[in-house]
Amino acid sequence: MPRKRSIKTRKQQTVKTLEALGNTIYTEMTHKRFPSIDIPSRSTSNIRYEEASRQYVLGDKSVNRSSRNVRHIRPFTQLVWTASFAHTLCKSKKTSTLRDVFYSAQAFDINFKDQKESDNIITDLEAALDFSREDFNIFPEERSQIFGDLTIEYTVPGYQGKRINLTMHPDGLAIGPALTTAELITTKANKVIVIEKGAMFTRLIEEQAYRKFKAILIHTAGQPPRATRRLVKRLNAELNLPVYVFCDGDPWGMAIAITIICGSANAAHLKELTTPEAQWMGLYSTDIPKYKLPGNNLSNIDVKRLQDMMKDPRCKGKPWRPQIEHFLKRKRKCELEAFSRYGLDYVVTKYLPEKLK
Amino acid sequence: MPRKRSIKTRKQQTVKTLEALGNTIYTEMTHKRFPSIDIPSRSTSNIRYEEASRQYVLGDKSVNRSSRNVRHIRPFTQLVWTASFAHTLCKSKKTSTLRDVFYSAQAFDINFKDQKESDNIITDLEAALDFSREDFNIFPEERSQIFGDLTIEYTVPGYQGKRINLTMHPDGLAIGPALTTAELITTKANKVIVIEKGAMFTRLIEEQAYRKFKAILIHTAGQPPRATRRLVKRLNAELNLPVYVFCDGDPWGMAIAITIICGSANAAHLKELTTPEAQWMGLYSTDIPKYKLPGNNLSNIDVKRLQDMMKDPRCKGKPWRPQIEHFLKRKRKCELEAFSRYGLDYVVTKYLPEKLK
Repeated sequence: MPRKRSIKTRKQQTVKTLEALGNTIYTEMTHKRFPSIDIPSRSTSNIRYEEASRQYVLGDKSVNRSSRNVRHIRPFTQLVWTASFAHTLCKSKKTSTLRDVFYSAQAFDINFKDQKESDNIITDLEAALDFSREDFNIFPEERSQIFGDLTIEYTVPGYQGKRINLTMHPDGLAIGPALTTAELITTKANKVIVIEKGAMFTRLIEEQAYRKFKAILIHTAGQPPRATRRLVKRLNAELNLPVYVFCDGDPWGMAIAITIICGSANAAHLKELTTPEAQWMGLYSTDIPKYKLPGNNLSNIDVKRLQDMMKDPRCKGKPWRPQIEHFLKRKRKCELEAFSRYGLDYVVTKYLPEKLK
Repeated sequence: MPRKRSIKTRKQQTVKTLEALGNTIYTEMTHKRFPSIDIPSRSTSNIRYEEASRQYVLGDKSVNRSSRNVRHIRPFTQLVWTASFAHTLCKSKKTSTLRDVFYSAQAFDINFKDQKESDNIITDLEAALDFSREDFNIFPEERSQIFGDLTIEYTVPGYQGKRINLTMHPDGLAIGPALTTAELITTKANKVIVIEKGAMFTRLIEEQAYRKFKAILIHTAGQPPRATRRLVKRLNAELNLPVYVFCDGDPWGMAIAITIICGSANAAHLKELTTPEAQWMGLYSTDIPKYKLPGNNLSNIDVKRLQDMMKDPRCKGKPWRPQIEHFLKRKRKCELEAFSRYGLDYVVTKYLPEKLK
């Protein structure tokens, strides 16, 4: 059974937490004390890879940002304004992007020297309050798409309570603020397939693979935006659906699978983005000769990336390590589109059934 | 009144034309003659800018590709195979991408040395038969989105006859093969706004600008894929909706507007991609000081692009020329997100009403 109303509860918690922060600061000030905020340290020395959960996590170190410290006043003020802006967004049920936040600050004479600085403060706020920027209604630009037998219920203004089934539009539906904040109501699917390439996403819809394999399909369009990673996690956690990640057979495709499954160092302060139970379905380096797929030689940059992966703690065990070594030995790569060589339905009639077994 | 069933008719015409080509070649061969195909020349010398229609068009020169000529045998065979593959796609109601076509050829021992070669042959086929690759069911990777009060009727398998209204999903619906081949049934909108940036697209949905301005919104995500340009054209031609293009205030935003309105030299052989009646709504260079928008200095590459535009026949008149000169004088540019400086609803309450007037 899905956890009902998880989104609504979470939004209420976000607003409460933002208000608690405001109240604390206000109380400090009325008592003539300098307010300060504790933020878990995101420096490299405080990020470690946790074998058990197969994720990057933050250690115990934290920094105190205090309005008493003259060097802290600027980032402290920026942080408080950002929290207040996030509160306004949540209360007014509007959304914003990272870039919008940067420009919006100018209206309040809050000075960010560039978007990098405002992005960084938003990440500080995430770490300080243990909510992600999507909870604060700050969303990335939409890029990913979803399709499959999943019924959702919107929570955004104008659509509250409205339900749709995501087989509605066979080109796929954008994963934006409305979908990300929707309650997941019910599904007849028994798995999720996450796909790097649009061509393969369209292929699996056209060949009715979503029916054959009872799968919800997600198209990441390269490295998935965080909102998409979070949706994958929710499908796994709330609906108990196993997740399979299907990418190009090259280090960049592998990196997408690794990010979804093990997370990334720069989002170590957030846990709801990673799906450790997800499985990398391919293309493996060993799949290229096995299925006689056409491909290309690895470039120097590909090789360099694979060598870096050899040192990456996330890639120590199976399936990563043997595949990295195989890539480096054969020096060949292959795209998802290469399956077309054997006809447009080959991937659905041959490869996927074998892999999913 | 919309031109009903235009898609179905067009698909039938495409199939007929492909079959006519096949029959001609077959007949020639049974009469022991060497078959050949006439293709309008796409060389620079045969592309000219037509002032009246404000579009690039092809001249009268054509080339005859003959199986009698030993140097022509390879591209002639490639072209015939591509036509046959397109016919199979149309008859089986499957779609493909440019990359898929390249790989699919390998199954038939048709040798393309790289995707550039197969792309080029597909363009030859477009020019020879006067249909676009989307007519042949060869689609680009999906990227663009649409949202608004438009009811469409699908023609793709499994969805034939099914109608949906495109306000269904407030994050937007992907413009893929299903939407591109849908019949446009009915709309309460009286205009189309084409938007470069996802953040602005989401903003206009959230602020209910689509209601206020009775607009169908299209998000191009940068330079629009051809399928999106074609949909814009159809909305204009079939539903008589005026089209406004809303892009960043820089040469790249202008280039998007120019491509939609005047087309591009390398698609001069196709007319159904351009919408000469569409209007560039901004951001103009003159809007930046007028609305006191924050911005950045033009880079050297920006300046170079603008100088090239000064020589571009498409940019001779208004509104392009004065704006290019203004850009070069002020040396400033501005993104759509900059409107956030004045609050998230400023663009809807102030800028758009003034511009649409």
